[in-house]
Amino acid sequence: MYVIAQAAPSAAAIPSVAHATWAGHDEGVNQISIWRQTLEPGAATPPHRHECDEVVLCQAGFGELHVDGEVHRFGPGSTLILPRGRDHQIFNTGEVPMETMGVFGASPVITYLPDGQVLDLPWRS
Amino acid sequence: MYVIAQAAPSAAAIPSVAHATWAGHDEGVNQISIWRQTLEPGAATPPHRHECDEVVLCQAGFGELHVDGEVHRFGPGSTLILPRGRDHQIFNTGEVPMETMGVFGASPVITYLPDGQVLDLPWRS
Repeated sequence: MYVIAQAAPSAAAIPSVAHATWAGHDEGVNQISIWRQTLEPGAATPPHRHECDEVVLCQAGFGELHVDGEVHRFGPGSTLILPRGRDHQIFNTGEVPMETMGVFGASPVITYLPDGQVLDLPWRS
Repeated sequence: MYVIAQAAPSAAAIPSVAHATWAGHDEGVNQISIWRQTLEPGAATPPHRHECDEVVLCQAGFGELHVDGEVHRFGPGSTLILPRGRDHQIFNTGEVPMETMGVFGASPVITYLPDGQVLDLPWRS
């Protein structure tokens, strides 16, 4: 499987989040996962961390990244750098859907809540 | 460094290729590299392979992926899956610049020519 059409994000089991997995172990790679997501205005991810590095590309929308006790505002054309093991949370603080691509340095992606509990995500990772 | 503005690709030492490194070890991750590139009409990459998995997201333009003795045509909205160690070559066969994002499962990215020689690339990898 070398060429795949990019699917639009669709409703996930998590409210206010639409998701499409564009690449990962099911597609034939285990060092990379790519998640295309939409986060509705006013919504946020839970605070969480990953066992692998993450890079988020923001294509549309405005938000805040909370990490290390700091708040970083971002908008379209921003790249968020999230080294592995760093607790973080992303908020859509704007008035339009936030369109992102999450790139991870592993597949599957292992996600933890701040207390160390594994967060089971409702999509292919 | 958590939030970085995405730079437009600029001329590289390789003719017909413009490049911007959006993420990698200089930005604080070593499991991921992201390269934003533009390939001019009629141009092609050399045949090559990487020591890590690669996923190419085609945002604009039309081309061919040559891999494993097969030719796969692709266009805007295509994802190319290139497991590590697989020789491949990408051609812009269309009439407009090809806009791509190359995602790699390592940083730095090690690139080989088919004969096993390391290809020194003129950008941060």
